[in-house]
Formats: sequence, structure tokens, C-alpha cells
Amino acid sequence: MTAPFDFAPLLAPNTPPPAVKWTGFPKYNFIGGHNDPKHLPVDALIEAATTVLRREGATLATYGLNSGPLGYRPLREFLAKKLKGHAGIECTPDEILITSGSMQGLDLVNMLLLARGDTVLIERETYAGALTKLQRLGVNAVGIPLDEEGLSLDAVAAKLDELKKQGVTPKYIYTIPTVQNPTGAIMGEARRAELLKLAAEHGVMIFEDECYSDLVWSGKRPRALYAMAGGEGVIHIGSFSKSIAPALRVGYIVAKWDVLSRMLALKQDAGSGALEQMVLAEFCARHFADHVPKLARTLAGKLQTLREALAEQFGTSAEFGDPPGGIYLWIKLPDNVDTLKLAQAALAAGVALNPGPEWSTDKERARCRLRLCFANPEPETIKQGVAVLAEVCRREFGVPLRSANVEKA
Amino acid sequence: MTAPFDFAPLLAPNTPPPAVKWTGFPKYNFIGGHNDPKHLPVDALIEAATTVLRREGATLATYGLNSGPLGYRPLREFLAKKLKGHAGIECTPDEILITSGSMQGLDLVNMLLLARGDTVLIERETYAGALTKLQRLGVNAVGIPLDEEGLSLDAVAAKLDELKKQGVTPKYIYTIPTVQNPTGAIMGEARRAELLKLAAEHGVMIFEDECYSDLVWSGKRPRALYAMAGGEGVIHIGSFSKSIAPALRVGYIVAKWDVLSRMLALKQDAGSGALEQMVLAEFCARHFADHVPKLARTLAGKLQTLREALAEQFGTSAEFGDPPGGIYLWIKLPDNVDTLKLAQAALAAGVALNPGPEWSTDKERARCRLRLCFANPEPETIKQGVAVLAEVCRREFGVPLRSANVEKA
Repeated sequence: MTAPFDFAPLLAPNTPPPAVKWTGFPKYNFIGGHNDPKHLPVDALIEAATTVLRREGATLATYGLNSGPLGYRPLREFLAKKLKGHAGIECTPDEILITSGSMQGLDLVNMLLLARGDTVLIERETYAGALTKLQRLGVNAVGIPLDEEGLSLDAVAAKLDELKKQGVTPKYIYTIPTVQNPTGAIMGEARRAELLKLAAEHGVMIFEDECYSDLVWSGKRPRALYAMAGGEGVIHIGSFSKSIAPALRVGYIVAKWDVLSRMLALKQDAGSGALEQMVLAEFCARHFADHVPKLARTLAGKLQTLREALAEQFGTSAEFGDPPGGIYLWIKLPDNVDTLKLAQAALAAGVALNPGPEWSTDKERARCRLRLCFANPEPETIKQGVAVLAEVCRREFGVPLRSANVEKA
Repeated sequence: MTAPFDFAPLLAPNTPPPAVKWTGFPKYNFIGGHNDPKHLPVDALIEAATTVLRREGATLATYGLNSGPLGYRPLREFLAKKLKGHAGIECTPDEILITSGSMQGLDLVNMLLLARGDTVLIERETYAGALTKLQRLGVNAVGIPLDEEGLSLDAVAAKLDELKKQGVTPKYIYTIPTVQNPTGAIMGEARRAELLKLAAEHGVMIFEDECYSDLVWSGKRPRALYAMAGGEGVIHIGSFSKSIAPALRVGYIVAKWDVLSRMLALKQDAGSGALEQMVLAEFCARHFADHVPKLARTLAGKLQTLREALAEQFGTSAEFGDPPGGIYLWIKLPDNVDTLKLAQAALAAGVALNPGPEWSTDKERARCRLRLCFANPEPETIKQGVAVLAEVCRREFGVPLRSANVEKA
């Protein structure tokens, strides 16, 4: 028996607390970017894996296959075509870097531009993963208010001017312009043009995160900021997680080569998983265009199930919109509800939710807000989960007073 | 047309220079951990992919499958069994974290323990990737001389004492004890026991990198340091890159839960690629035990081809050992050869090699040394490549005087 080793004195400063043991998914799982398991195209993925491995499986013997460090070339070729048709982006396969999920895209952009003490502008309500990374980097993330079209440009302009007076140039403006996370807003092209103008005037980069942009119910969307700027001053990231499968860790960065080549130099991981890239490329070339609208129809239906369940169970106590796409709904509860506490109590009852403060730079304003993800649970589970959540909320905070039109004691 | 955007003022300090465009593999590719394409088990991988996707492909719809953030449970179960039989490690699947290649393992250990200005001990000749990462982190990597069994313990003890007098506790001792990269040394169990004792006495962790340990010609190896310490004070990493396929980015960390849970908290990537984990688990359960010895036999043959070619082309100008495993040979050329210059000239002639200084903390001592990897090229290509290399070396440095017993002008 060896004596226990005390590693505590060796830990780096500011190490986060240990992770807790995973004990399985909650019964009512309204968190995480999980997808609809019924729409996981298993047969087509098997066919794709078989075809691509038969044809070029032996190339797995070399790092980067025969494609080099930017990632599997046929996947980059698919993306170049898809980005043009979908988002209006004109780029070559050599202006696309495949990453291990869009999370690595966030990391690489941050490594390229950020040092401790730097400032960035960010949507006041935004992706918690982006906020966490910025916090760990010691970066000042300044939240900009949102309206139904996303970033308020008056607020962006005012903040840029204010910072300029302090001698601060923010490194980037991080935005999710197409199906904003968590509000679901889509920024129109006129506002996009103005945002680009503002950023260029101030010498600030735009960091455009389009992880959810495939899932627009109408199938139509404005041109990407990257497209409208001809790529100048914009870094664009995206992902296959939401449109195909989140457990496949495949994302991408689009940038001009002078910017991309610097992120490539920072990507010291010996490449992203090649099998997933190969299978995705083979699958997407044949099936992407058919697969996504079918998935979107199902998700649009689940969103309505969630909205109806909320209306039924929470009545006027829950305020929410009708987002044009995505996998999440942003909800306001009465002011006395503390969603951080609600999340704990709900989890004990089997309901997982994202409390608002984790998804916002304005913790106080977000205290009574929460995010519910609807892509993964079945409609019946959504209904039951919302009923349980209403029950927990009533017990903890006295609201909603009525559920399903029945007054509660 | 949008005006060009100058992002240079926004770059983080100390950003590395841009990557250069990839232009394909060199004709004689003696660098990188590439493997033998003929031993890539394509049919068995197709079978594995088909079986596992048919059985549980729909779980790709959730991050972490149904296994949680440590990685696909059947792969961790395979590893627990394999590590016990192979390396004597007693651990549960919950003491194994699947990573995106062992590169991510290096990153997570470094994030856990290192801050700018810290000190670590490292084998004087070592993996260039580890050195590069330490350099970027601003960590003082102190090289310890090696002999035919790896780390010289006298030198470790002396350095630990010297640092102690300066009030410095190194964060870890990084070692590749089984088929050391690049020297191929295997550390015996007696020395391992002594190293563990030294490290424990000084409160220093051991960071054990066993990426190459599957490829020992005899199939036998000493117990892992992790095994001998019962896991106390040791972090162990490994990989499937060298034994199956490098383009599959699947590695792992073994550590006690109190240490592992802290690295898990730092692994903010939404999981490593799940398809690769699933396919590997399915493949390995049936084929790993047969596959690896067959691969090792071929690699052992290629090593002898390389050694014979070097003897033939370089004669006494090249000094090298006969490593008991691995994919690389560490070679000393005459003192006047500068392998950094040789590498450039050789590359122009189609031969890629690793110049010694990139693989050592002692740049001066390593100047006339180089690393050649032999797993990827076919035997005939190895012979031709060494002949070309000898020709280039003679042209640039006047040695070897004779090649293939023919005196050269």
C-alpha cells in the first residue's frame, strides 16, 4: 500500500472545483444541446462509414489523412458549397478549419486574440459556455442589451464610444446573429450591415457564432456577417452538432487565410477526429439537404408542444416568445422566482433546466429567467416535465397560482 | 468590396507565427507518428462501426452518449481490463478519462498543475510536442540526462536537491518510461521503484506518458509507474494512435478520482468524439489482442530495414541503438553535422526528419542528432530515403565519406 499523495500544494491557481460524478440523465432533460434521437440518421451513417472506410480507410494511418491539418478535404469542400448556398459565404476549402466541435473554435479564437484583462462585447444573454471560457481567461465580457432582432446597435455604439474614451479597444464583438442563444432572435441584414460598419470603424473584430443557424423553421435566413463583409474583420464558426448529432465533435472556423493560418498554428492537437469527419462528409454530400428540414419540422413541433405546456401549466406567470428556429426557449417567470434555486429544486424532482444567470452577463436581470431546451425529450415528456416544473415552482415560490386552469392551494 | 481589416493590433501577445500551407506529405516521410497503412484494420473497423451504430447509434443524439463526460463506458471498460493485463494497473472505468488524443491529456495535466514560471523535470531527450506546450506556457522545463534505461536517477536526485535549496518544488517529473521517445529506452522496475520513492519524498508528481508502450517487440514490459504506486502521486496517459490509427484522436488519462475529477472540470469541450470511441471500443474488444502483435512484428522488421540502410549508407558516421519497440530511431551523426540545417536540405530532396534540437532540452548536444520514424514508409522507401539522406548529408557536411562501401568524391 502506497501512502496517499497530497497534490493540493501543486495545483495551478484558480483551478475550478472538481467535477461531480455523473449519475445519468435527468428524467426531464431540458438542458444541453442534445438532439432528437429519432432523427439520428443511423442507417445513413452506417452506409457512409462503410463507403468511406472501404474507399480510403487506410489513410487513417497518417495524421490528417491525406488532407493536412485543416481537416478532411471533402468535408471542407461540402462546407464551402453549403455555406455559399445557405449563408452566402464565398470561401475556398482552404479558408475552413475543421475543429473538435465549435467549442474548440471558441478556444482558438480566444487564444488568437485574448489576454488577461482584455475586453470583449458580448450579447447580454448568451451561450453559457462562451461566458465560462471568458471568465476563466480573466477577460472583461461586457454585455450588450438585446431586442427582438438581437444586439441593440445603439447600445453597441454607446459602449464602443465609452470604451474608446477609456482607451480600450474591445478585441471582438461576439454574436450569435442567427437563432440567438438563448433568445432565438434573428438579426436582419440591415442591422448586420450597420453592425459591420460600427465594428470596422472601431477596429474591432466580429466573432460570428452560427452553431444553430441550420435550424430555422422557414429554411431561410439572412446572409452571414462573414458573407456581407467579404470575410474582412469577421471570424465565423459553425457546427454539425445541432443539425446531425452533438456527440460527433465536429465544428469549423471560416476565416481569411491570414487569420486562419494563425489559429491553425495554435491548434496543437495533431488534428481533429478523422473518422467523424470522413463519415460526416460522406453523409452530408448525399443527405444533409434532406435531413435538416425533416429534423427542423420535428423540432418546430416540439417547440409548440413546449409553448402550449407552459401556457397550460404556468398561465400568465411564464412569458416567452415564438422563436423562428433553434432548440431552446427563453422564459421569464415572475420577479420573485430565483431560477438558480428553482433549478436545484427542480433537479431533485427530475427536471433539469438552465437558470438564467448562467446564460447572461446581467445576473440580477436574469434571476427570474430560464432556458429550456426542447430537442431531446419526446412531446409527452415535455408536457410531463413542464407540469412537474410548475408544481416545484409553485411549492418554492408560490407561482403559478393556477395550472391547467385548476386553482392550487 | 470591403476594405481589408488589419487584425494585427488585436492579436494576443506571443502568438506563434502563422502556419504554412500544407502541400502534401514528403516522398520519404520519416517524421510524425504515422503508422503502417497496410496494417490499418479497415474491414474490422467497418464491421465495428456497423455493429455499434446499429446497436446504439441513436445515442449520438446526446452529448456523452449514455456514458457521461468521462467518455464511452465500454471503451473505459476495455481499457481498465487492458491496462491491468498489460501494465499491471488496477483501476476502475471511473478512473479513466477519454481524451481527444494524448495531446489533450498533456494539455489537461498542464492546466491542472502549471502556471507561468513553474518548473518541471523532463527527460533531456523527449517528445517535441511536450516541450512546445511547456514553452508556450512559460514553464521552466529542466532536462535530466538519460542512459540506456531512461532517466538517470542520480541526476534526478541531484536536481531535486538543488531546486529544493532554491525553494523550488517542480510540479511534475514527465517521463516516457516504456519505449522512451526518442531513445527507445525501457526503464526497469527497480529504477521505477526508486524514481517513485524520490518523487514522493520531494512531493513531486510523476507524469507518465505511455503512448508507445503497446509497441514492445517482446510483448512484455515492466509494470507502469502508476501500477507500482497504486496510483498515488502519478498521472498516467496513453493513446490508441500508435497501436491502431493516429488519425483517430483517442487517448486517455488514468488518475485517482480526486485528481481526475479536477481534470474533468477543466475539460470544457463537450466531450471527445463519440463515434471514434464507439468504433474503437467495438474493435478493441474483439481484435486488439491480435492486432497489436501483428503490427509490432511489421514495425520490428521496418526498424531493422532502417538500421541496415543506415549502416550501409552512413557506415560508422551514424551511431544508433536497437530499440526494443516503438516507431522511431534516435541517431547520432558526426559532431560537425547540424541537423537543423540537414533537415532543411533533406526536405528539399524529399526527405523529412526530426532534427535533434527539437527533441531535446539540450540544443547543443542534440545538434548532431536526429530522429527517424519508420512505421509509415514501406521498406523499399526506407532504403531509398536513407540513401538520399546520406547523399544530402555528404553534400552539406562532407560525411559520410563512404556509402554502400563506395568511396565518394
